[in-house]
Amino acid sequence: MNDSQAVSYRMLDRPSLLALLAGIDGVRSRLGGVPEAWQIREVGDGNLNLVFIVEGPQGSVCAKQALPYVRAAGPSWPMSLDRAYFENSYYRAVAPHVGRLIPEIYHYDADLYCTVMERLSPHIILRHGLIEGRRYPNLARDVGEYVARASFFTSDLAGPFEAKMDGVARFTANKALIRISVDLIFTDPYRTSERNRHTSPQLDATAADLRRDGPLKVGAARLGQKFLNQPEALVHGDLHSGSVMVTQDDTRVIDPEFAFYGPIGFDLGAFFGNLLLSWYSQPGHASHAAGDDRVAYQEWILDQANVFWETFRSRFLDLWAHQARGDAYPAAMFAQPADAAALKSARNDYVDALYDDMLGYAACKMIRRILGFAHVIDFERIPDADVRSHCEAGALAMARLLLTHPGQFHSIDDVIDAVPRMRWQVDMPGKSGRGADRGYAS
Amino acid sequence: MNDSQAVSYRMLDRPSLLALLAGIDGVRSRLGGVPEAWQIREVGDGNLNLVFIVEGPQGSVCAKQALPYVRAAGPSWPMSLDRAYFENSYYRAVAPHVGRLIPEIYHYDADLYCTVMERLSPHIILRHGLIEGRRYPNLARDVGEYVARASFFTSDLAGPFEAKMDGVARFTANKALIRISVDLIFTDPYRTSERNRHTSPQLDATAADLRRDGPLKVGAARLGQKFLNQPEALVHGDLHSGSVMVTQDDTRVIDPEFAFYGPIGFDLGAFFGNLLLSWYSQPGHASHAAGDDRVAYQEWILDQANVFWETFRSRFLDLWAHQARGDAYPAAMFAQPADAAALKSARNDYVDALYDDMLGYAACKMIRRILGFAHVIDFERIPDADVRSHCEAGALAMARLLLTHPGQFHSIDDVIDAVPRMRWQVDMPGKSGRGADRGYAS
Repeated sequence: MNDSQAVSYRMLDRPSLLALLAGIDGVRSRLGGVPEAWQIREVGDGNLNLVFIVEGPQGSVCAKQALPYVRAAGPSWPMSLDRAYFENSYYRAVAPHVGRLIPEIYHYDADLYCTVMERLSPHIILRHGLIEGRRYPNLARDVGEYVARASFFTSDLAGPFEAKMDGVARFTANKALIRISVDLIFTDPYRTSERNRHTSPQLDATAADLRRDGPLKVGAARLGQKFLNQPEALVHGDLHSGSVMVTQDDTRVIDPEFAFYGPIGFDLGAFFGNLLLSWYSQPGHASHAAGDDRVAYQEWILDQANVFWETFRSRFLDLWAHQARGDAYPAAMFAQPADAAALKSARNDYVDALYDDMLGYAACKMIRRILGFAHVIDFERIPDADVRSHCEAGALAMARLLLTHPGQFHSIDDVIDAVPRMRWQVDMPGKSGRGADRGYAS
Repeated sequence: MNDSQAVSYRMLDRPSLLALLAGIDGVRSRLGGVPEAWQIREVGDGNLNLVFIVEGPQGSVCAKQALPYVRAAGPSWPMSLDRAYFENSYYRAVAPHVGRLIPEIYHYDADLYCTVMERLSPHIILRHGLIEGRRYPNLARDVGEYVARASFFTSDLAGPFEAKMDGVARFTANKALIRISVDLIFTDPYRTSERNRHTSPQLDATAADLRRDGPLKVGAARLGQKFLNQPEALVHGDLHSGSVMVTQDDTRVIDPEFAFYGPIGFDLGAFFGNLLLSWYSQPGHASHAAGDDRVAYQEWILDQANVFWETFRSRFLDLWAHQARGDAYPAAMFAQPADAAALKSARNDYVDALYDDMLGYAACKMIRRILGFAHVIDFERIPDADVRSHCEAGALAMARLLLTHPGQFHSIDDVIDAVPRMRWQVDMPGKSGRGADRGYAS
């Protein structure tokens, strides 16, 4: 926290939050009644913020305030408050293009680093729904559409490069959060670090083996370099299943504080990789007593992975075909009918490269959640460490294959075929029998 | 020119330049004597600036001032003065790494957009030397070393990404000059544009044919997109043979006003492509009366192209092997002896990709100098339009092959083999016999 931040910032409590909200006309009328009657609950369960739900007689809002340190680590890990500014900047940049796939933003307070926005209700965090085995018919299509629109319209395909370059310059200042990604996604999991942890001792050998795998590390490092050197579009930067809120028929993307101009494949891979993590975690949430072995649910998850990619692919290509007004592949160069075939081929090549990036980043995201600092409740909520480690080892094996043998995955079908096969590629002598007993082996 | 520029900027003349220089202690003492005795000549022959040589009893300096319009086009094409700031920023950024391969900078005047720097004498512009058929024993090694050092040390391989990101943000503001590159290199040559010209009618059919070549245009557009989306390092942005000054044993890189964070291959391709342009222009400068057919000189040029690439390659790999302290491929991830082979392979892959980029950008640079707005005197000084067009058509054919069949050029030897063969791939019915008469066909 720098000096200028320190002057006016304070952590919100009930009185100060009430005062803030009462001073915003649109919010006051939305809540209704008098501020003294508003109900406030702090519900933040993430790593970095306070999140308040405020309910009045007429309606409710959500207020999110950045904390000056990593909540999961405490004040010993300070964290720039500016991420609230970048989150707000991201929402503003994509809002014209993604419609109601993000929450409506009512107000941003630059002194308090606080965003007041639509309260999403009865939405729940997608990750929780996946753990509970719930299905969301629109989810994969919605998120595929979201990434296609948010990335296309902030790329050089959609507009003059000068506008994008202004955005690039603005978001380079989000360095504190980019540093977290560089360290926690692309570096620490591949070396010994105090911040790492894993299910131990079950995965000790797997972790050590992975950290000795030169080609794997090179694969991760190549994607880490690309992460910093390919500002294709404004990316969300943290698009995992904890950054999506859902109901049966509504999907909203939240928490874009890691936003910056980077590879489109990074957002694709975050969502895709977290679907795969969910797939591998399902045996840990099976309830054989209730007749719920999650096998059919795993099939649904893989189907969603397919729908997600195919929706992104077709929507992105469609936007490019009909709304290309940018400096990349300028329309003026391809105005003749004879150009159409070459341009179509170029578009497909470009999207194929995004597919490769998606798989690579998915793998990086899977590995960091099992061997790095921040884990996911998909696995953490599996109480039996042996079961958990089996699930995690399958995910690690799949991620490793994606990083070291990308050529095996020409199409999404190759991925979908490989996922179930990878659950047995587990280097855990004497444990596979026990896994089989639990019913999550074929 | 915006308002803040207009307040204090004025075009320098003799009295104002004398006053400026007399006020800079280091410059006054370097020139010696009294300002009234200093000799001033304006020698600018570029497109965008005034360039003064100032000589005093003790020594001399060079002063370069940005003009608020494109000099070659006149005040009707206004141009941001800020490019002088970016030129100065570039010099400062690379100076610690490239030693005496750039001129020494004595002073930068931010109000006048004027840089006072070392006068290079008896240096001449490399392009002039190449037209005269002169050889420079150190040239290719020096420029290869220059690009290796300037790009490595401003990349994520050398230092923390935060420092590079600050640089990226700073140079995104050089949009006015980046716009020139986007339009004049990657767009206009591939479509009908008032700014284009070519040797007519000789190249009419070739130009029209090239502008109908979908795969060629896609190749150029792909590189144009990468130009805007790959801030690998701080690049010079205009590293042709007019931006290098030489003596028999000294080499200096000048005029980095197009600098920004972009693909390393863009600088490599600019220099490489201009060597090839020189090769194709040589028959136009042959003097058969003087027994100077330039055939041996062409061999020398191709040898320089080879030395340039190989020097860059070996120096870049060497710097990476010994001075990698950056966030890309972080050393902490590859600390074990067993990692060495994988990392070495990754380094080679990375440099191979730079080679591909070099050839692609070389081709783009060749095409824009023959079919676009700004031509080069290598060709312009060939008075006979038929001879000139034959030379240009050979260069276009080579550039076209590089863009449409990059897979044919696995190694630099493939390029060197192809260059002489391309001079007959000219779509100019009934003209080849005449070319043969002039002695520049095998």
